[in-house]
Amino acid sequence: MTTDYRPMWQELGLDLKAHDNLLQNLGKSYQEIILSQKNRPESMAYLDFVMSEVHGLRIKELLEAKRNGRKVIGAFCVFVPEEIVLAADAIMVGLCTGTDFALEDVEKIIPRNTCSLIKSAFGFKLSRVCPFLEAADMVVGENTCDGKKKAYEQLKELIPNLYIMDLPQQKTAIGRQLLRQEYQNFLAAITELTGIEITVERLRRGIAITNNKREALMRLAHLRQADPAPISGLDALLINQVAFYDDPLRFTESINKICDELEERIKLGNGAFPAATPRILLSGCPMAVPNWKIPWLIERAGAVVVGEESCVGERGWRNLTVNNGNTIDELLDALVDRYFNIDCAIFTPNAEREQHVAEMAQNYGADGTIHYSLQFCQPYSIESMPMERRLQDQDHNFLRIETDYSMEDIGQLQTRIEAFIEIIS
Amino acid sequence: MTTDYRPMWQELGLDLKAHDNLLQNLGKSYQEIILSQKNRPESMAYLDFVMSEVHGLRIKELLEAKRNGRKVIGAFCVFVPEEIVLAADAIMVGLCTGTDFALEDVEKIIPRNTCSLIKSAFGFKLSRVCPFLEAADMVVGENTCDGKKKAYEQLKELIPNLYIMDLPQQKTAIGRQLLRQEYQNFLAAITELTGIEITVERLRRGIAITNNKREALMRLAHLRQADPAPISGLDALLINQVAFYDDPLRFTESINKICDELEERIKLGNGAFPAATPRILLSGCPMAVPNWKIPWLIERAGAVVVGEESCVGERGWRNLTVNNGNTIDELLDALVDRYFNIDCAIFTPNAEREQHVAEMAQNYGADGTIHYSLQFCQPYSIESMPMERRLQDQDHNFLRIETDYSMEDIGQLQTRIEAFIEIIS
Repeated sequence: MTTDYRPMWQELGLDLKAHDNLLQNLGKSYQEIILSQKNRPESMAYLDFVMSEVHGLRIKELLEAKRNGRKVIGAFCVFVPEEIVLAADAIMVGLCTGTDFALEDVEKIIPRNTCSLIKSAFGFKLSRVCPFLEAADMVVGENTCDGKKKAYEQLKELIPNLYIMDLPQQKTAIGRQLLRQEYQNFLAAITELTGIEITVERLRRGIAITNNKREALMRLAHLRQADPAPISGLDALLINQVAFYDDPLRFTESINKICDELEERIKLGNGAFPAATPRILLSGCPMAVPNWKIPWLIERAGAVVVGEESCVGERGWRNLTVNNGNTIDELLDALVDRYFNIDCAIFTPNAEREQHVAEMAQNYGADGTIHYSLQFCQPYSIESMPMERRLQDQDHNFLRIETDYSMEDIGQLQTRIEAFIEIIS
Repeated sequence: MTTDYRPMWQELGLDLKAHDNLLQNLGKSYQEIILSQKNRPESMAYLDFVMSEVHGLRIKELLEAKRNGRKVIGAFCVFVPEEIVLAADAIMVGLCTGTDFALEDVEKIIPRNTCSLIKSAFGFKLSRVCPFLEAADMVVGENTCDGKKKAYEQLKELIPNLYIMDLPQQKTAIGRQLLRQEYQNFLAAITELTGIEITVERLRRGIAITNNKREALMRLAHLRQADPAPISGLDALLINQVAFYDDPLRFTESINKICDELEERIKLGNGAFPAATPRILLSGCPMAVPNWKIPWLIERAGAVVVGEESCVGERGWRNLTVNNGNTIDELLDALVDRYFNIDCAIFTPNAEREQHVAEMAQNYGADGTIHYSLQFCQPYSIESMPMERRLQDQDHNFLRIETDYSMEDIGQLQTRIEAFIEIIS
């Protein structure tokens, strides 16, 4: 960042010293993990720029939008419908949850046996280092897992403008009705916050923008079927991560440009790694910036990640919303249809997820799947065990990893990942 | 047990050797922890008899009932409405979940980071040592916490007759509607299983029996307000535990007899412990037989437990069902009203639980509260932290304990509990 954003951060109430520290570490990791990669697509320069300005220019944009009367909504989960937010000219951003911060203070509020993602949300708030969170007019928490559901009760004491969205546990008729009701309530809450009446036209526009973003991300995903893989898993993950922060129109355009370049690369047989590099599907918990640990270890060990079955990946983007409703009710129904397809491990049963992992492994030509759970994430940890058993029964190579945001287990993980890649090579 | 029940156990498919082992350990613990207590009410002899025959005479009764065409329903949770089961002349029993069994095999199916209660259910099934489970015509699992919800998916592979009951996460109008729908479905499933049409008269009778049982347990609870406490916490917990196994009519009558004796004791000033013994309220996760660790440590350290804020305790029994409906629909509404009052930590928000703990502490004259969470039980562990903070702010002594079913931490727990009792004495 060339501009001095410190006055802006100060105005937002950030702890400048802690924030400097965060940016310094983030920059260092970015250099070491992302920028040091070879054979990157040239158009990734856009992502590098966005990331270099993620707490700078992007925050400036948000604050300018706020001065023009627009509202900023922060969210932790792909169940929060960006379509409704966009329909009210508001801006949705994913909140910082990818690294440990102020762990000692966090563990005075929530138990040590809580997953890193939840602890991270508390850490960023307690330390005042997340400008997205501080800029948000409304923060949306959702009743997905027990950890989040119960931790939000306490996060609400730190973030009074925390809005809770309930979610069903089963995909039954009444479960669908519950989600429908929650989206209706959310639309009402966004209307009240923004003062903007959400018309059919507005909601259709919100759906179109979001569909376009998801289509671009799915276009990117499909290009990774090629061998050699035209883009590294780290760069693809980065794109999926930035999808939560960037302006959706600009982002979509940029990703489509990257896809144009990747198509060229594929024609020329150029890749991020040589042809016949062992190919890995990553499956499991979401990875927020700067949680690049696992794909970094995989690609350093000489394999390439060809897909992410995760909320920050295909689980988050793959379904589009049918956008031909003529009333708000019809459009809300279409949204519920779309979101109800997400095969998150919070649902029971959730057999479609296992099926989708198998399909992705096949479509992307994966030689093996690495399942990543955050420690203490019960839904994904529990689901990974029958998944391992059944995919191994189909002769698919499968490795289950449980980890957190610390770097303490890096040596052990490296050994396990290297051994796995050796087996599948 | 004087009778030879081995042919019966064999017929049920139990692993006789492992089961002998279980009974031997259970008998030893019962002797050491329960029977060794001083100043027990004489009428506790009934409980001692029931416990000595819990896998014997009681199972014989169940099998006889089955031969007469009645059905046996096993359940893990107080959200399963016994009223509906009784209305169809069926028998509901709580399933074995209070001790570790076959841990190594269990942890091949579900993660190590799962609470002891859930692991125990798997352990009993894998080892074939729970006659209640093997005798059950239907086992009911409920979507309470993530651990159970997701583990049931795999338990269903071991127990094909596992019936899943969904539960809401919020006490909203639609949450209530979901519970209503589930109880309606459960009534239909029980009707189908038993072939008995549940009439208004039958359901009223089921509600009356269950109300009477709960009233007896609440009568017992209230008698413990006296100083000296007329009964030990261990004996009271045992009664609460046996409530899940015994025939409800016989049980209710016996508990009322115990209460008669306790009333006499109170008049005479006799107690299980001397007057002015430090008084402890236990709050948190349920304690199934033979999980007596914490109250045992507390009472060995010279305090007395005067109440259990737990599903195996006041949380499970305290609400009665209004029994004046004239249609099945009205009675189902009344049941939902009753069960929707349960302040289980799976709900968010769940402020009424903290309030009830404070009320219990006051009503029972507790000098302090010990909160007990099973390790990896996120709902109760997370909820215990603000509860501790807020009750301590009201100058109430509060100790948070996290443990499992092993005896490895007994020394450490003893030290902490003794120190706590010293503070409150």
